Amino acid sequence: MVSSLRLPTLTSLFSPSLTRRSTLSLRRRLHLGPPLATGFSSQSAAPSPPETEDRVDNKKSSRVQDRANAERVITPRSPDFNAWYLDVIANAELADYGPVRGTMVIRPYGYAIWEAIQEYLNVKFKETGHSNMYFPQLIPYSFIEKEASHVEGFSPELALVTIGGGKELEEKLVVRPTSETIVNHMFTQWIHSYRDLPLMINQWANVTRWEMRTKPFVRTLEFLWQEGHTAHASPEEAEKEALQMIGVYTKFAYEQAAIPVIAGRKSKVETFAGADRTYTIEAMMGDRKALQAGTSHNLGQNFSRAFGTQFTDENGQRQHVWQTSWAISTRFVGGIIMTHGDDTGLILPPRIAPIQVVIVPIWKKVDEKTGVLDAASKVAEILKTAGLKVKLDGADQRTPGWKFNFWEMKGVPLRIEIGPRDVSSGTVVISRRDVPGKQGKVFGISMEPSILEAYVKDRLDEIQSSLLQRAISFQDSYFVDWNQAYYEPLHNDMITMRS
Amino acid sequence: MVSSLRLPTLTSLFSPSLTRRSTLSLRRRLHLGPPLATGFSSQSAAPSPPETEDRVDNKKSSRVQDRANAERVITPRSPDFNAWYLDVIANAELADYGPVRGTMVIRPYGYAIWEAIQEYLNVKFKETGHSNMYFPQLIPYSFIEKEASHVEGFSPELALVTIGGGKELEEKLVVRPTSETIVNHMFTQWIHSYRDLPLMINQWANVTRWEMRTKPFVRTLEFLWQEGHTAHASPEEAEKEALQMIGVYTKFAYEQAAIPVIAGRKSKVETFAGADRTYTIEAMMGDRKALQAGTSHNLGQNFSRAFGTQFTDENGQRQHVWQTSWAISTRFVGGIIMTHGDDTGLILPPRIAPIQVVIVPIWKKVDEKTGVLDAASKVAEILKTAGLKVKLDGADQRTPGWKFNFWEMKGVPLRIEIGPRDVSSGTVVISRRDVPGKQGKVFGISMEPSILEAYVKDRLDEIQSSLLQRAISFQDSYFVDWNQAYYEPLHNDMITMRS
Repeated sequence: MVSSLRLPTLTSLFSPSLTRRSTLSLRRRLHLGPPLATGFSSQSAAPSPPETEDRVDNKKSSRVQDRANAERVITPRSPDFNAWYLDVIANAELADYGPVRGTMVIRPYGYAIWEAIQEYLNVKFKETGHSNMYFPQLIPYSFIEKEASHVEGFSPELALVTIGGGKELEEKLVVRPTSETIVNHMFTQWIHSYRDLPLMINQWANVTRWEMRTKPFVRTLEFLWQEGHTAHASPEEAEKEALQMIGVYTKFAYEQAAIPVIAGRKSKVETFAGADRTYTIEAMMGDRKALQAGTSHNLGQNFSRAFGTQFTDENGQRQHVWQTSWAISTRFVGGIIMTHGDDTGLILPPRIAPIQVVIVPIWKKVDEKTGVLDAASKVAEILKTAGLKVKLDGADQRTPGWKFNFWEMKGVPLRIEIGPRDVSSGTVVISRRDVPGKQGKVFGISMEPSILEAYVKDRLDEIQSSLLQRAISFQDSYFVDWNQAYYEPLHNDMITMRS
Repeated sequence: MVSSLRLPTLTSLFSPSLTRRSTLSLRRRLHLGPPLATGFSSQSAAPSPPETEDRVDNKKSSRVQDRANAERVITPRSPDFNAWYLDVIANAELADYGPVRGTMVIRPYGYAIWEAIQEYLNVKFKETGHSNMYFPQLIPYSFIEKEASHVEGFSPELALVTIGGGKELEEKLVVRPTSETIVNHMFTQWIHSYRDLPLMINQWANVTRWEMRTKPFVRTLEFLWQEGHTAHASPEEAEKEALQMIGVYTKFAYEQAAIPVIAGRKSKVETFAGADRTYTIEAMMGDRKALQAGTSHNLGQNFSRAFGTQFTDENGQRQHVWQTSWAISTRFVGGIIMTHGDDTGLILPPRIAPIQVVIVPIWKKVDEKTGVLDAASKVAEILKTAGLKVKLDGADQRTPGWKFNFWEMKGVPLRIEIGPRDVSSGTVVISRRDVPGKQGKVFGISMEPSILEAYVKDRLDEIQSSLLQRAISFQDSYFVDWNQAYYEPLHNDMITMRS
């Protein structure tokens, strides 16, 4: 089923929104996703009518442009969370709008966060027995039609190639919105007997969905994701796999992104058509709304029946395979921004931060410069050798104060300051991004390599767990209950958190 | 210029083909690429007329299907190099045909080779100061039209999205064939002064070109690549960058892929429209034809003028930036197959082999099995701990002989055999893929970890350099001269081979 791998949007799964949610038609929820604005907060809790494309885009674009070109000012979070979110993305240079409505250019700093997500998950996928591969993104329209009974109304989200090589095509081609159909077309050719099972693959790819209301990272016309696809000889194995992968996502969210997600099963009405069961991880963002941050589906035999994906079992009987699919996308970057950021800008958990430590050398007189820069380089070398991601900002054009603000806005977990006095005393000053002002600042940390390395690593660990604790407390403060009509949390013992 | 990053096909750059090449219209060479079949060999040297789409595909598909489903038989290389190539791809499960004509599914074993290419280059790109990012793949048609004077006739290769979200679009969208246009659209917004330069980025992405004659890896409707894009404040810097990157590619080809490429500059007539200079690396394949395996363009100010990409220089003057772009694609996997493979199948250089050592345990009686498997596991552990990519093939269903053939066909550089006698003597038997039969087989290598590790690593190094030497000798034997009308090799001192 085409939409089974959708990572659908900011959803609200908490009970106060029940009455509001239920006024939405099923079709809208399944195909366009729930409205962005629902949840605990009193602000715009009712779904607003979709804005016209131009209005949405012009407004956002002008904000991004204004902020980027003017002084770096970030709207405070509480009066307008959405404006704050867009300001952080623009100022921290995480992403920019592409020329086609709803598309996004992922800039180097934003892409580096995605790379950190990829690096971790890619290893976990391989450890759990999956191989990467690549399927073409152009899918014959007839494949989608095979699934028509399941995805009635999905076609409004498709981008269609109708002209190729200067000629009108005989059959329209769909630009991949998800790959179940083409995966099953190929699986049918590769799977013959139980010996070919389980078949467990993953691909890192771009997908295209014609979303009407877009928001950087959270919902864009094109986004990047990984989609896992597996085929098994029994329903038990498929269920175990679907749970295993939601476990991998859960562990990733907690341990790497410091996001306390809740793994659960969507109720029947929320299960994606084409799946027997849909598991998701849900996280509460800074505006107290839920973000669906990853999905894992037990597809049962729905696709294997549609595409004739069969195997000969050990008794010589032909059976349809049991399948799963699971995905995490660049939306997760949006989840990180919205979980940890504050009025000053981004706050990044050390384990996924592209820069973990920024070093700012401080000098006033010219004759101080060399000594300060030398010491700063030495400190950078020590920390790089220790395996940390370090940036030395020795630029002449900016003041230390400007640099402090800039790197705080970029969410770098630790800042090291080195001035002439520090050089004489052989020490540095270290500030934590997550603890503002004097409280987060410690003077007189020795530059001696082993002491410095140990101190910095300890602080990074502390920040990592402190961010998680803070997010847990926030969630606990505002969480009321699950909306049982939509969601049922999993018991802990159902999820394997592999190490 | 849109086509400036094209990796155009099997080209012939050696002089005998001059007369044949020159019969092709320029338009054909620039836009459809030279024909597949040109070169030294007497076989089908003249370009054959393009086959109809169906004929091409059915023929290929049936071959792939036949081979995959029947016994594994590979056509010998010399009578029909193309059939050999397709047989190797099918039997080694490197790729399969996608449902849309000209598309390719990259299977796990083939994708793992691409991953090895990515891992190496990704590090080198970062070391040379480039950041990864991501641009949308849908490009307004008007962007391509801006380049109309440069790319006249390129539109026959475009895939166009005309319907999105169920509606006819006001402006057709191009599915990215290369990204110069959209990159410059964004660069224009990001670059203000000389302080923003150089801007050096790279993206790993899929690209789509409506090729009429396709061949797995070498030329497909959609392929994977990296495309680097840089902007500089002076023409000298841009030229240095273009040369630096062709140097990175050259070093990669020699040291990792064991392919002796020749770096050179295309003559004016072969320089892609939109570029001031085009550098490529060219390699001689097993059929003595040249494969263009990587490109690096000095784009001058052609794109910056078309898109108004300007900066304020240190004197306060507005200037257009100088740019480069450079790419290597999944075609390189085809180059590896065609350089090293033999009648038995694939031969992979150890540094890019997904499996460097396969271990085949051998037993006849049931009571021998445990001891043999235990020893095999121990050997596998030793080599994995040493950082090697190891596969233990302990499957019950297949004979050792079948396994030998299978892993030879897959091109695994080293095979370790362990039987009951080896277990008693504490030794193993080691066979080289690149030296067939008894000559490549050594008995009695100790299982003692340090001895075994050192022996295996030495052999892998030996295979790596032996494959390169063999390819160099082959090239030297058949190389006559460069076709000066098309190509001028670079002097060695022009290329920096960074370590």
